Amino acid sequence: MVDTKCFDHQQLDVETTLACARRLYKDRNFRDTSRLFFIEGVRNFVRVIDNRFELETILYSEKLLAAPLARKLVRQSRRDGVPTLNLTPEQFRQIAYNERASGVAAIVRQRWAKLSQISPQTGLCWVALETVRSAGNLGTLMRTSSAVGGAGLILVGNQIDPFDPDVIRSSMSGIFSQQFVRTNLTQLRDWLHQHQCQTIGASPDGNIDLYQFDYPPATVLFLGEERQGLTPQQRDLCRHLVRIPMVGDADSLNLGVAGSLFLYEVYRRDSSRQRG
Amino acid sequence: MVDTKCFDHQQLDVETTLACARRLYKDRNFRDTSRLFFIEGVRNFVRVIDNRFELETILYSEKLLAAPLARKLVRQSRRDGVPTLNLTPEQFRQIAYNERASGVAAIVRQRWAKLSQISPQTGLCWVALETVRSAGNLGTLMRTSSAVGGAGLILVGNQIDPFDPDVIRSSMSGIFSQQFVRTNLTQLRDWLHQHQCQTIGASPDGNIDLYQFDYPPATVLFLGEERQGLTPQQRDLCRHLVRIPMVGDADSLNLGVAGSLFLYEVYRRDSSRQRG
Repeated sequence: MVDTKCFDHQQLDVETTLACARRLYKDRNFRDTSRLFFIEGVRNFVRVIDNRFELETILYSEKLLAAPLARKLVRQSRRDGVPTLNLTPEQFRQIAYNERASGVAAIVRQRWAKLSQISPQTGLCWVALETVRSAGNLGTLMRTSSAVGGAGLILVGNQIDPFDPDVIRSSMSGIFSQQFVRTNLTQLRDWLHQHQCQTIGASPDGNIDLYQFDYPPATVLFLGEERQGLTPQQRDLCRHLVRIPMVGDADSLNLGVAGSLFLYEVYRRDSSRQRG
Repeated sequence: MVDTKCFDHQQLDVETTLACARRLYKDRNFRDTSRLFFIEGVRNFVRVIDNRFELETILYSEKLLAAPLARKLVRQSRRDGVPTLNLTPEQFRQIAYNERASGVAAIVRQRWAKLSQISPQTGLCWVALETVRSAGNLGTLMRTSSAVGGAGLILVGNQIDPFDPDVIRSSMSGIFSQQFVRTNLTQLRDWLHQHQCQTIGASPDGNIDLYQFDYPPATVLFLGEERQGLTPQQRDLCRHLVRIPMVGDADSLNLGVAGSLFLYEVYRRDSSRQRG
């Protein structure tokens, strides 16, 4: 059961709200059940508002928060009815995980799309993932997907939490422009079939090379786990297995790099198609 | 002063050698002065030998080391006169920094090239760096450079240690195929002038796009620090500033990703040139 007392907007209790913020930062299970997540820092704060996320509570410190844009956004949000809590610098530092206490943080409602609501035509392409060992790699991928106008992540199964603070940090706020869908392999297979969409699996034993492959207009890129690569079930789902060329002894790349090379190749082809 | 007692090959003392190994792992200053570094694991061990690094001492554990190739290489090295030390599993675990104790480790002599000895024509291209915040990013770059046949790293100043264990780990042994040169901006400028070599700086405010730029046959790619990018002095050295295209709010990419996109673009152009 989720303790929702801390989200009783009538009377924000400082200690309870701080405890909730800390728990959202550290506890995946609490993020899952409450469907909330925690962000800190001016950049993250501005981007969640730019991308129209629903703010549950703003935690700020009048004394610490210098950035004029962020101060303005705090005032605007308060006028729009978002509960805000002015903390002392000491209180704020209890939830400041960045090097410098920025003075602004927020508890934010997670946003998920349903597979039935999304289209393969949204954005440049979708990335499908089931397992990622490193939150840094996932954040890096989201940063790149955001930079090329990618739609977001199709998450197979429950292993990945895109609202993990380490993912958010390494995405450099890129994650807030992305959409998220959670599904399973069977549903995904049906959706791909229904939309006549082709899935490309990134694999060192792919029979065609990243630069030779003729990318379809609507692409889902499936990436495997860092060490094991695509599972047999994931490979089954992929219409094509595409490899990144390598020379010498090299047999693999960092997952964030490999995914980014694919995303930018899809972007490059798409741009040159648009230029005609 | 470096304590060289542990490298007295006539009589390898277990405790002293283990202490040296641990110190090489943790202490940059000791690595610098001794010109040695420490590696562990079958993959690293095989690759340092493949790439003809000079082994100072092999530390292995007969009971832990299962891989037949590594066992064969230990025997061969011993015949070639490399001091070897057979450790108990408990002793080996004192220097096992990987998840599983692989059973093989080595103290290895660092290998540096002089700027006067290298040519811009070596390998696909060189990467120049002065500062990198994250050892993981540097290792990732080396992994990609190795995958495209890059020559190696030109290090400006003393800030970067390519033999840092975190760099080695995230390079997935890719680092052992790379050459390293340490220099300063003045010497590098002279060398570039002498070889009529063009330096490309990666910069978000570059006036030409990664995919439009006409890469010269001998390329040095200069990458700036993660947050600050290229310094004015570094920019001065670059003949061209080239940007990676981005859409929307995105203003930067992970350094390992950005460098890898450049390296693979140089590779792609070079391959298509060779195909005619």
